[in-house]
Amino acid sequence: MGLIEDTLAAIAPPDAEAEKAAAARLDSLTKPPGSLGRLEEIVRRYAAIRSDPSATVGRAAIAVFVADHGVAEAGVSAYPKAVTLEMLRNIGAGGAAISVLARKLGYELIVTDVGVETDTSATPFAGVRYRRVGSGTRNFLHGPAMSLDESRRAVETGIETAREAAGRGVTLIGIGEMGIANSTPATAVLAAVTGIPPARLAGRGTGVDDAGMNRKIKAVEAALKLHRSSCGDGLAMLAAIGGFEIAAMAGVCLGGAAARMPVVVDGFIATAAAAASIKIRPGLGSYLFFSHRSAEGGHALALEALGARAILDLDMRLGEGTGSALAMNVIENALALFHQMATFASAGVSGKIE
Amino acid sequence: MGLIEDTLAAIAPPDAEAEKAAAARLDSLTKPPGSLGRLEEIVRRYAAIRSDPSATVGRAAIAVFVADHGVAEAGVSAYPKAVTLEMLRNIGAGGAAISVLARKLGYELIVTDVGVETDTSATPFAGVRYRRVGSGTRNFLHGPAMSLDESRRAVETGIETAREAAGRGVTLIGIGEMGIANSTPATAVLAAVTGIPPARLAGRGTGVDDAGMNRKIKAVEAALKLHRSSCGDGLAMLAAIGGFEIAAMAGVCLGGAAARMPVVVDGFIATAAAAASIKIRPGLGSYLFFSHRSAEGGHALALEALGARAILDLDMRLGEGTGSALAMNVIENALALFHQMATFASAGVSGKIE
Repeated sequence: MGLIEDTLAAIAPPDAEAEKAAAARLDSLTKPPGSLGRLEEIVRRYAAIRSDPSATVGRAAIAVFVADHGVAEAGVSAYPKAVTLEMLRNIGAGGAAISVLARKLGYELIVTDVGVETDTSATPFAGVRYRRVGSGTRNFLHGPAMSLDESRRAVETGIETAREAAGRGVTLIGIGEMGIANSTPATAVLAAVTGIPPARLAGRGTGVDDAGMNRKIKAVEAALKLHRSSCGDGLAMLAAIGGFEIAAMAGVCLGGAAARMPVVVDGFIATAAAAASIKIRPGLGSYLFFSHRSAEGGHALALEALGARAILDLDMRLGEGTGSALAMNVIENALALFHQMATFASAGVSGKIE
Repeated sequence: MGLIEDTLAAIAPPDAEAEKAAAARLDSLTKPPGSLGRLEEIVRRYAAIRSDPSATVGRAAIAVFVADHGVAEAGVSAYPKAVTLEMLRNIGAGGAAISVLARKLGYELIVTDVGVETDTSATPFAGVRYRRVGSGTRNFLHGPAMSLDESRRAVETGIETAREAAGRGVTLIGIGEMGIANSTPATAVLAAVTGIPPARLAGRGTGVDDAGMNRKIKAVEAALKLHRSSCGDGLAMLAAIGGFEIAAMAGVCLGGAAARMPVVVDGFIATAAAAASIKIRPGLGSYLFFSHRSAEGGHALALEALGARAILDLDMRLGEGTGSALAMNVIENALALFHQMATFASAGVSGKIE
């Protein structure tokens, strides 16, 4: 068996006993039961995923995958393809939004080139890992974006990233991405998994105009028609209409679940990766936290179709893992409350009137 | 003139020029314009309130006011009155939810007894300031909760708290509260200011049962009828149907605005204080950030009536300033992005396709 099959075999269900024990402790803390709302739900789910009633916190990391997309040539993005490479350098150098948030919040930032068009690995950018599956995908309007072997390698890169992080003591990992035009394959993947029509899912991405938006919707519709026969299988779907960074993020979702490490999903494009991981392994959503509801097109619809409720709703649409970082911050605050609050007994506080 | 009148006279409008300059810098950062969504709005408002285009960050503080309520004797709360004193001690000692969050996030925690029933100032609790206006309010079902002079002194306590914090270099202050039964006066104040019927505004507070909930609604309706003539004026309204901690929080709103220090409003009860401050000084809402939409009854309706949109929506209903703390964390993250992200020019990143 390969790494993907090994990983799928290693995924066990979240631990209901750990969740119950965490819930009991939550009710012993000096607050009305349930009054911390979704923070309590976060703690319970973290304990269940980790199979750890004490919900112990280790290190936190954000894995950002960067790649180019052949479909960019169809004029679906507001920015030139060169921006992918420029932003890869900027993220590694510490100037991008995710660089700032990771630094401020003390999160390890793992930046990976999984397939930017221009190969800079010979004179590598500071702060960037090179795990290149190719030099950008092919335009999925003319054939599959990548081969099935490339799709597997991209997913495996994500699985390895999650495994290595877990090995370093990471207990919470966020995913993020950068790749000009990647909201187009993300729309295609989400449409394929959820059945929502592309015209309802598609958004403006980085800010494309009306004409570009129409090209984007037409491109996704055409791709879904061309690759219909590949969309029944998760890995084949990623090969046909996905992207290297989308497949790698799906790999982190799978690898995180196998390592009992909760995965925090960023916005629209990361949600497409999460949807692909659920397509590969039904039920995987129980290992994921959806960080925020993006301002991007049909993200709210996609979350609903996946049965997910996002932690934050801040009209963000930047990607890079910025929503993941903010949500991980909320998760850490929730866990601090769980660990450090006094109990009714220890603080001598009276309970409810019976 | 007194402190309140001096404070009102010192409040100037937010600085539109500073806001414009901050907006221009936001558009120079390496991200699609507007893609940080509400984080950008937060930065612009912070710059405008501070009258500081560079949106410089100083210290952050959370002011928690604790007091008792005569109306508790009407059976409107799920917990006995003794819990107010017990939680005052717990908050000061570091065991309450807000103690944990303030410690984790590095915020100064200012805990003030403004009128708990039992006076412990002779053998003071650790971590507690005593600025007692009285030993709990009177039951507003039989007469005003406090005298007009007490209302003024409670508001002045809040103003002084804000002034002193600003003097120590605090540039962002959150408000929070603790006081058994205080969602009842908060409902009364919000009903009086917004005109929303008590039955739509009232919630379960710390978890009162159906009978208690009915008593609560009846109590608020009776109080509004009894004290109708006092509700045209903010200070008289606070005297008639408010509470010491509600009046003190309203004072922080006024004092924060006068010191150009943004005030972060917690949940349902703090929103009642904010509403009272807006009643005292129309337009004061432009100095406030509403931290979260509480799970408590009609908080969403109250926010809508005040034209406010909360930063977070986590189904919390604990109070103490816990929502303020989490939202202040988001505000600090937004400001870090503003200060530390690279610009398109500095990072050599291409702009949009023209």
